Amino acid sequence: MSGFVSFIGSGPGDPELLTLKAVDRLGRADAVLFDDLSSGPILTHARDGADLVGVGKRAGRPSPKQHHVSRLLVDYAMTGQRVVRLKSGDGGMFGRLEEELVALREAGIDYEIIPGIPSAVAAAAAAGIPLTRRLTARRVQFVTGHDANGELPPDLNLDALADPSASTVVFMGKRTFPKLADALIARGLPADQPAILAEAVSTPDQALHRTTVSDLATRLAGEIGSTPALILYGPLAEGDI
Amino acid sequence: MSGFVSFIGSGPGDPELLTLKAVDRLGRADAVLFDDLSSGPILTHARDGADLVGVGKRAGRPSPKQHHVSRLLVDYAMTGQRVVRLKSGDGGMFGRLEEELVALREAGIDYEIIPGIPSAVAAAAAAGIPLTRRLTARRVQFVTGHDANGELPPDLNLDALADPSASTVVFMGKRTFPKLADALIARGLPADQPAILAEAVSTPDQALHRTTVSDLATRLAGEIGSTPALILYGPLAEGDI
Repeated sequence: MSGFVSFIGSGPGDPELLTLKAVDRLGRADAVLFDDLSSGPILTHARDGADLVGVGKRAGRPSPKQHHVSRLLVDYAMTGQRVVRLKSGDGGMFGRLEEELVALREAGIDYEIIPGIPSAVAAAAAAGIPLTRRLTARRVQFVTGHDANGELPPDLNLDALADPSASTVVFMGKRTFPKLADALIARGLPADQPAILAEAVSTPDQALHRTTVSDLATRLAGEIGSTPALILYGPLAEGDI
Repeated sequence: MSGFVSFIGSGPGDPELLTLKAVDRLGRADAVLFDDLSSGPILTHARDGADLVGVGKRAGRPSPKQHHVSRLLVDYAMTGQRVVRLKSGDGGMFGRLEEELVALREAGIDYEIIPGIPSAVAAAAAAGIPLTRRLTARRVQFVTGHDANGELPPDLNLDALADPSASTVVFMGKRTFPKLADALIARGLPADQPAILAEAVSTPDQALHRTTVSDLATRLAGEIGSTPALILYGPLAEGDI
């Protein structure tokens, strides 16, 4: 007897940004395995009596290893339970979804994937900024600012990221941004390219800082704190928007 | 007396992929201006008696000009009404949000932006594919396949788009893909790079076709039909996922 897993993108944090489908699945789950950013009021949609299991990974804190999370997920499903695996934002975007899918497939457990609002999309909405512009930003790109060791990934496509006519969002990149910014400016990105540091998007702690690529790099070379944040840069503040 | 406009991303089409916030705003709106892909069952969340106004733009059909839509939006809000402007997917991603925001700002009308599930994110979820991979796809990019004249935009960053280690999603690109694919392959994208044509994502008509960049280009050089579609390519089908 094997259960069923619903991978659910919980969105950026605001429980009102859950989808109707996510709320439905939460209300019917026997167990909910959640990340740190998918906790709090989001979990009030789980039914009474459901197992709520935090498996959070968060920068700068000890946390379960990914293979332990995958193992736990399989173990819950193997008991025949209906399991929800909550991932912040959209699970398929920098959410380590791949490893958990592989573990379920190897164990022969069925699953579904329910998309969520990516935090980058919510950040742009919070800032009042369209990620694309008809004439000035026809490409938008999302990239991770750290590799498995917490360093700037060595194989980033710097030319693609230095394109001043794309909207770019860097995930998990506060610590490595000073180094990234240097590399991008060396490849031609204007140092005064508009940038936004978006912290704790859609939560009560949300803070949006409008700056430039070089000023943000200088700022982040100092104290960065542990608040989850995205960095947006590109033609973000042209015209009146 | 001026009203208030809620820009709402309605997601890819499945009404269960609306957010709770979208459902709330729809239920309290006096008027709902919607695009073709945000219609049907999604509109059942509007309250009885609300004005439902289709302002759809869809490939291959005559449709209102963007400045008429912006004008209509301002006119509705100026009567003091609570207006919802529904846009398919996420409004800030290839949704012409920019022009409507400018029109409202010029008219002094307040608004909010509520993010939605981007159709690209829903397409990946439907295909069971994470858009990012920890080791093989650290960058994901979304691009439009047509400019204001319906042609391939002349200023695309072809090197960025030919990067075989990024996940790429082309919006509104069925007609121009043969030309784009030629250009990408000339820049080094492998002709046999995995690709997916995702039509009518999350609706009852959804169809996912797994193919390669060159085979898809050949196919789309023939009959393409009018079904809305996304094209995904990149390291999409590696390993077992």
